[in-house]
Amino acid sequence: MSNRLPTLAVVGATGAVGTVMLGILSERENVWGEIRLIASARSAGRKLTVRGEEVEVQALAPEVFDGVDVAMFDVPDEVSKEWAPIAAARGAVAVDNSGAFRMDDDVPLVVPEVNADQVRNRPRGIISNPNCTTLSMIVALGALHRAYGLTNLVVSSYQAASGAGQEGIDTLHDQIAKVAADRTLGSTAGDVRAAVGELGPFPAPLAMNVVPWAGSLKDDGWSSEELKVRNESRKILGLPDLKVSATCVRVPVITTHSLTVHATFASEVDAEAARELLAASPGVEVQDDPANGEYPTPADVVGTDPTWVGRIRRSIDDPNSLDLFLCGDNLRKGAALNTAQIAEVVAREFTG
Amino acid sequence: MSNRLPTLAVVGATGAVGTVMLGILSERENVWGEIRLIASARSAGRKLTVRGEEVEVQALAPEVFDGVDVAMFDVPDEVSKEWAPIAAARGAVAVDNSGAFRMDDDVPLVVPEVNADQVRNRPRGIISNPNCTTLSMIVALGALHRAYGLTNLVVSSYQAASGAGQEGIDTLHDQIAKVAADRTLGSTAGDVRAAVGELGPFPAPLAMNVVPWAGSLKDDGWSSEELKVRNESRKILGLPDLKVSATCVRVPVITTHSLTVHATFASEVDAEAARELLAASPGVEVQDDPANGEYPTPADVVGTDPTWVGRIRRSIDDPNSLDLFLCGDNLRKGAALNTAQIAEVVAREFTG
Repeated sequence: MSNRLPTLAVVGATGAVGTVMLGILSERENVWGEIRLIASARSAGRKLTVRGEEVEVQALAPEVFDGVDVAMFDVPDEVSKEWAPIAAARGAVAVDNSGAFRMDDDVPLVVPEVNADQVRNRPRGIISNPNCTTLSMIVALGALHRAYGLTNLVVSSYQAASGAGQEGIDTLHDQIAKVAADRTLGSTAGDVRAAVGELGPFPAPLAMNVVPWAGSLKDDGWSSEELKVRNESRKILGLPDLKVSATCVRVPVITTHSLTVHATFASEVDAEAARELLAASPGVEVQDDPANGEYPTPADVVGTDPTWVGRIRRSIDDPNSLDLFLCGDNLRKGAALNTAQIAEVVAREFTG
Repeated sequence: MSNRLPTLAVVGATGAVGTVMLGILSERENVWGEIRLIASARSAGRKLTVRGEEVEVQALAPEVFDGVDVAMFDVPDEVSKEWAPIAAARGAVAVDNSGAFRMDDDVPLVVPEVNADQVRNRPRGIISNPNCTTLSMIVALGALHRAYGLTNLVVSSYQAASGAGQEGIDTLHDQIAKVAADRTLGSTAGDVRAAVGELGPFPAPLAMNVVPWAGSLKDDGWSSEELKVRNESRKILGLPDLKVSATCVRVPVITTHSLTVHATFASEVDAEAARELLAASPGVEVQDDPANGEYPTPADVVGTDPTWVGRIRRSIDDPNSLDLFLCGDNLRKGAALNTAQIAEVVAREFTG
């Protein structure tokens, strides 16, 4: 234990997740000495505010990691793949929010509320942060698994535009502005498509629509996003035989992913007991009183930290299954917040 | 067989479904003699066009059913409950699109592609049309059931605003116009709620949001819409022990419901065989080539008749399960079209 405040680097500080990260670092208890902001060369020299101070953005280069204890990466897969090992080689612990290392056996995939102990198991000096869709449910499912023993998950997502970055946010705002001008839209095949203009990062119009696709095409018709939900859930929960079926769908929401989950357990479940257990779980908020219109919706929880859970029901035809509706801010717990939480677990190694 | 063209009454001719019905009656092969349009007293005297002719709307009264062979009801539950038996007592076969009679043992619940034979089993002179959410999937599931033997369904809905009638459509257009004015919306809890103004028939903002609620509260936290999906699927498919879990969620789409379905069967399934079987099934269109961006979305299929099926995958961890994404126009097959199809089956009793 060196008992000093460690140095943090934020790589990708100017992106959609990086922007949220600077806010989170400013809000949370300060465990960091110096904070360096890193981005691509074209953003170098910009000044951004973190912890109330202006910090100049530096261009990504090997030297910027000298003296860095923890380096967070909020960048595309290919950038992480190249640069996280460079940061690690220079002595930093890399906490990576890309998909580059998540399924690497020598890289732990960490959600502090579920498997914080895995942080020290990092032979490559790299720790991975899960995908935002997995993160929108896994804290709540981890708590239920510890009580009942999870065996089977059926997941459907209602994923926000910001999962596709700032371009996703901008595209949805643009499309909403275009469809707002014509109150006849939405009743004839193709009228919305003709009105929205640019599709941006989405494969179909997102305003006034839902799109059953996120990520890239993998074997047998599965999307990469759907396989991430399956494979990452198994790894985080330590359940290599967990049965998972996910269908990922993009919806016209700016930020905050929602999920429906049909979770089956080894033992019989009780909705009220599950409600109490979730309400007592760190990182989870239960909002479940439909008689009074109480259930989470993305517009009402965006910008908050917890995983919100509502519509908790025991399946009518299976006493071992629960049906749930969950919401989580995909830029916060789904990305920046969980990365910050992992980094804080590492920071405690320095401060004792 | 009287071998004459039967007389049809359309009750609720001025509503959201009634308006679509007049279009459908104008498009389909004409099997009707006189068509009478019926609505509440305040709409009486209005002139609407059907089959290219102007017809004056009559006020709902017992006498309007005299001489009517088939009376379609697209009205709220309480109106159907009172008036469908009156129509039946005056000699009409009532085809009812409300929830009033669907689970009545003496009223068949009919989807012509699945159980047309049930039309004659109508001791009360009433035939029910299923709920729009059930109808968005049941033609495709009926075809798969006949091949593989359905045992278990997990359904999540992405339901359109028009499921809540014309008020739902108007409310969503109003809300979209309001949120379009401010490109900062959607990143702070409550900002969308403050911007949208009136919630109309929805319990939370629908623009830039998804709302995990449709219908009224039933036992153990289930919504009426979710129980309809379970109970109606069992009745239509003739599977009283089918295990069903549904979570119904409203999305900011004007018209066309989408569903994800995880369907488990008694025997092993094959995605390509299922694709071929569905493609050959009447009333079903397969759109499933994600390598070329081909999957159904509500904006691209609204206004069409079929149940659209895409994202057909065999579950990775269960060879007896399929994962699907379906879209169906909730005002057409989900309401008016199926009602018209049932009425046409009855009409053949008159024309031989």
